[in-house]
Amino acid sequence: MQTTTKEQIIEIGAEIIHQKGYNHTGIQEILNAANVPKGSFYNYFKSKEDFGLQVIDYFTAHYNQMVLETLADTSMAPLDRIHRFLTEFINYFRSQGCTGGCPIGNLAQEMGDLSPKFSLKLKASIDLMVDTYARILAEAQKDGDISESLDAKETAYFIVAGWHGAIIQMKLTKDLVPLETHRKFIFNNILKT
Amino acid sequence: MQTTTKEQIIEIGAEIIHQKGYNHTGIQEILNAANVPKGSFYNYFKSKEDFGLQVIDYFTAHYNQMVLETLADTSMAPLDRIHRFLTEFINYFRSQGCTGGCPIGNLAQEMGDLSPKFSLKLKASIDLMVDTYARILAEAQKDGDISESLDAKETAYFIVAGWHGAIIQMKLTKDLVPLETHRKFIFNNILKT
Repeated sequence: MQTTTKEQIIEIGAEIIHQKGYNHTGIQEILNAANVPKGSFYNYFKSKEDFGLQVIDYFTAHYNQMVLETLADTSMAPLDRIHRFLTEFINYFRSQGCTGGCPIGNLAQEMGDLSPKFSLKLKASIDLMVDTYARILAEAQKDGDISESLDAKETAYFIVAGWHGAIIQMKLTKDLVPLETHRKFIFNNILKT
Repeated sequence: MQTTTKEQIIEIGAEIIHQKGYNHTGIQEILNAANVPKGSFYNYFKSKEDFGLQVIDYFTAHYNQMVLETLADTSMAPLDRIHRFLTEFINYFRSQGCTGGCPIGNLAQEMGDLSPKFSLKLKASIDLMVDTYARILAEAQKDGDISESLDAKETAYFIVAGWHGAIIQMKLTKDLVPLETHRKFIFNNILKT
């Protein structure tokens, strides 16, 4: 089935790009890993760039799925959802031995100066993260759990930026301290009444 | 003079690595740009890795110079120094059209999973940033300008992480809003009594 093969190429390609970056990943390498016949790539994608853009969609959809499962779960208090969400990411990075980093952050760093098309899609993905946090922070403000004086959107922006920076530090320390420090810091010093 | 040629190779190599990353930069490309005879590279460096590590030292020394000029200037109040320091970086990125990013953050992202030697040096460079902020935040606490309840080291950690994340976002937006939001946020919401 065509769809399945295409999905398979995207899934395996996403994994390789997450580890090695976009520029370092060859089409042939992906096709070999996906066990797809040589030459069939262009049946599914117009170009490597087209493929790369669809990989970003894949990462964003994956993130969205996590958001729906955790951040949108209104049975939990807003701040508890944020805490659980960050903890799930910490657990993910523990399972990865603190490698890989954030695929969106990685591609932003690698491609931000090289491809306006990539930048547009990556920016939309980060905006989605920011908007999700902002919505939940606004809920927390409505419930009186955090200060009304915080600008929900700016705070969300800062949480996401701090998280991306902490992930960079984690790549160097190869432990979870940077991520745990981020989580602790925002709950002790920012997300309070 | 041998020293000058070596310094020239490092300086030009640092510029190219800042734009293209370490793995994408070829030795020959650097020697061409530095106008140094082919084959002389190994008179100065044991390997590309040795060269890369010395480029990190160069970036760190450059950062240190900025620190000495601004953050260590005790004629200004501690928080004013931090504000001026961030503003100088914002002005730098304005002059660069919001490209390039932080060379240390870039290399951390690129090399963190690939080279323990790079990681060690990059971590030391980030620790230097964190320690510098922590020292100035402790001064500000002594002067009563920021809350005693903040952990100076953790706050410093968070400022640096948020800054690296904001730089990643700047690469996508190609404007200074992410950096200005970071500066505004820490002064409005964290660095206060």
